[in-house]
Amino acid sequence: MRYIAEDIEVRAREELFINIHPIQPAGRLTPEAMKALIAYGDGYSTCDWCVKPFRLDKIRRPPIYEFHSDLAEFLGMDEARVVPGARRGFQAVVSSIAGPGDSVIVSSLAHYTEFLAVEDAGAVVKEVPLNEKNVITGENVAKKIEEVRRETGKLPKLILIDHFDYMFGNEHDIKGIAKVAKEYGIPFLCNAAYSVGVMPVNGREIGADFLVGSGHKSFASPAPSGILATTKEWADRVLRTTQMVGDVTKRRFGIKEVEMLGCTLMGSNLIAMMASFPAVRERVKRWPEELEKTNYFLREFLRIKGNAILSEMPRKHTLTKVDTSKSFDLVARRHKRRGFFLGDELRKRRIIGEFLGATRAWKLNTYGLTWDQIKYLAQAFQEIAREYGIEVE
Amino acid sequence: MRYIAEDIEVRAREELFINIHPIQPAGRLTPEAMKALIAYGDGYSTCDWCVKPFRLDKIRRPPIYEFHSDLAEFLGMDEARVVPGARRGFQAVVSSIAGPGDSVIVSSLAHYTEFLAVEDAGAVVKEVPLNEKNVITGENVAKKIEEVRRETGKLPKLILIDHFDYMFGNEHDIKGIAKVAKEYGIPFLCNAAYSVGVMPVNGREIGADFLVGSGHKSFASPAPSGILATTKEWADRVLRTTQMVGDVTKRRFGIKEVEMLGCTLMGSNLIAMMASFPAVRERVKRWPEELEKTNYFLREFLRIKGNAILSEMPRKHTLTKVDTSKSFDLVARRHKRRGFFLGDELRKRRIIGEFLGATRAWKLNTYGLTWDQIKYLAQAFQEIAREYGIEVE
Repeated sequence: MRYIAEDIEVRAREELFINIHPIQPAGRLTPEAMKALIAYGDGYSTCDWCVKPFRLDKIRRPPIYEFHSDLAEFLGMDEARVVPGARRGFQAVVSSIAGPGDSVIVSSLAHYTEFLAVEDAGAVVKEVPLNEKNVITGENVAKKIEEVRRETGKLPKLILIDHFDYMFGNEHDIKGIAKVAKEYGIPFLCNAAYSVGVMPVNGREIGADFLVGSGHKSFASPAPSGILATTKEWADRVLRTTQMVGDVTKRRFGIKEVEMLGCTLMGSNLIAMMASFPAVRERVKRWPEELEKTNYFLREFLRIKGNAILSEMPRKHTLTKVDTSKSFDLVARRHKRRGFFLGDELRKRRIIGEFLGATRAWKLNTYGLTWDQIKYLAQAFQEIAREYGIEVE
Repeated sequence: MRYIAEDIEVRAREELFINIHPIQPAGRLTPEAMKALIAYGDGYSTCDWCVKPFRLDKIRRPPIYEFHSDLAEFLGMDEARVVPGARRGFQAVVSSIAGPGDSVIVSSLAHYTEFLAVEDAGAVVKEVPLNEKNVITGENVAKKIEEVRRETGKLPKLILIDHFDYMFGNEHDIKGIAKVAKEYGIPFLCNAAYSVGVMPVNGREIGADFLVGSGHKSFASPAPSGILATTKEWADRVLRTTQMVGDVTKRRFGIKEVEMLGCTLMGSNLIAMMASFPAVRERVKRWPEELEKTNYFLREFLRIKGNAILSEMPRKHTLTKVDTSKSFDLVARRHKRRGFFLGDELRKRRIIGEFLGATRAWKLNTYGLTWDQIKYLAQAFQEIAREYGIEVE
């Protein structure tokens, strides 16, 4: 084992293994992003050419300003900001729109960061039930809005629903939800942490008032990094500039945005996002092939007797929840390494990223694997199955 | 000019120049931090060994958990968290303690991010006047508290004062302020963005309830990165865990901290901080020599006729505000490049980081320069002065 400093080991999982970790593959850096990290790693590296009006997203060397406009256009929105993670985007929107006594509609598969953003604002989450396919529909959102109105006497202040959820990677009916949101006049934040950066996403076509993306999850960028995009209509509220005046000095800080806490995502993380952007623009066009590969893999995976898929099929995302409780888990129960046997076997074959020790319901993500790697991965699971006496059709 | 991707130029200012930029020198990476960036750049790189209870600061491989305890101890506090920038530390504390109708005491030299954190919480800043040396004293804080009490009928909810301010780099009377804070029973957040990581800082000795530091400003780390440290007494409030329960699913998210929005600073920024930590621990011991060097430089700088220092003297910080309106600015007025002539001359001598175009009051920082570089820097300014007919004693 090699170490960087004291007891920090060198990480080379992406270089040495096929990584099927549920949240890591689409955040793997491009070579350009790695070069950006090296060139812009030092602290305030983005401030070399900061001139009036002294706000990060206005800097033109490197072309941070241009990146912001290109990003807004790419997402079909009017304004875009980069933030330290999708969660900071939720926080900015929720705290601008909801407060104590208010309700925010979320999914029954809402990510915990959505709960926390609502709690931080003093508001309360109201979950929309899933339909029989584990999908959130516009119809169920409408029902929930009515329920909240009956119970609290007020409409919810915000609808915050995931484009694809973290649990099944299922696609939710965001266009239907946007329509319902418009009918009720409630703003809609579409959490696109699993979609912006891997597939084409257009906020205007969706009808979303806010679009939030994740750099480290889906935009080939280092953590923390995220995107908050919005429309002209909402920019004034969520991207409002400071009004505070010092009582003694009478100081004001001009165009600094309150929810952004002034300058947005800085340093090498920002420049890495910018450096990955050209590749990201191209890769979203190849999403259909990513789905072909993942569906191919899962068909092969299902040839292992007892294996099941818990996500909707055919897959519309490369993140999938699988169920191996009637296959690999039967082995795990009598194996001295218990559930870890599967990871051991995968590792022997240079595959990592399985949920440590899990052999019942667990998640995997095939994003970015080549066809050769996909086939190798399918064969590896079948080979392990056979080795442990599980039938492969 | 070399480019990383499209129009992003390679940044090599720290490698090719002597950089006297006011906020960049102490955020320059250590070699270990650069290695960490390269090894941990990929998105969710810190999540490889995330096991129960599934919170970033509890991960032991790499030793993130251990880093957090070591950091708290290093700062003389009970609990420490890493956050995406000092501003996110202010935000977490202010929004936990102050709300609409509340006042927060800040300095007349408060950084704009402190204003924004207060504004974001719906509270109002109340500035403490400076004394004749541009220093905030405990006495003036006490007077301001009384003034706020008279005006609003309530005590302020929080005192947020900088250890060293961003404008002059002056040291403020934080021990005296802590004493006043204790007397009034008001919590004290010491903004140590300019001190934690460059000099020894001990929250317990200061008597601070909160200590906030900046990774990219003073801890040899990439942006965004910061530190929030607190005492046992305040941890329950500011680091409170989520209480939100899903109304349909009954989900709860256990030990995730609301103000941290769950997992704290992730990825290569965190690992770079960890990698720089051993060097940072050592370098804070060499602070007296940093001051010797900066005071030497300024004595030489003052030999240029008309030059003045606006910060307190002798310097207790390497960040200094200088006044060259009676020396270099006289040249600028008749030079075709105006104020940019000084930067041009410095650049010829491989020096950068001066405030672009400024020749009146501007800031520089000598942190981390070797004695040879300090002497070279002093000579360079004197040489430029002589070349333009300014007397050097």
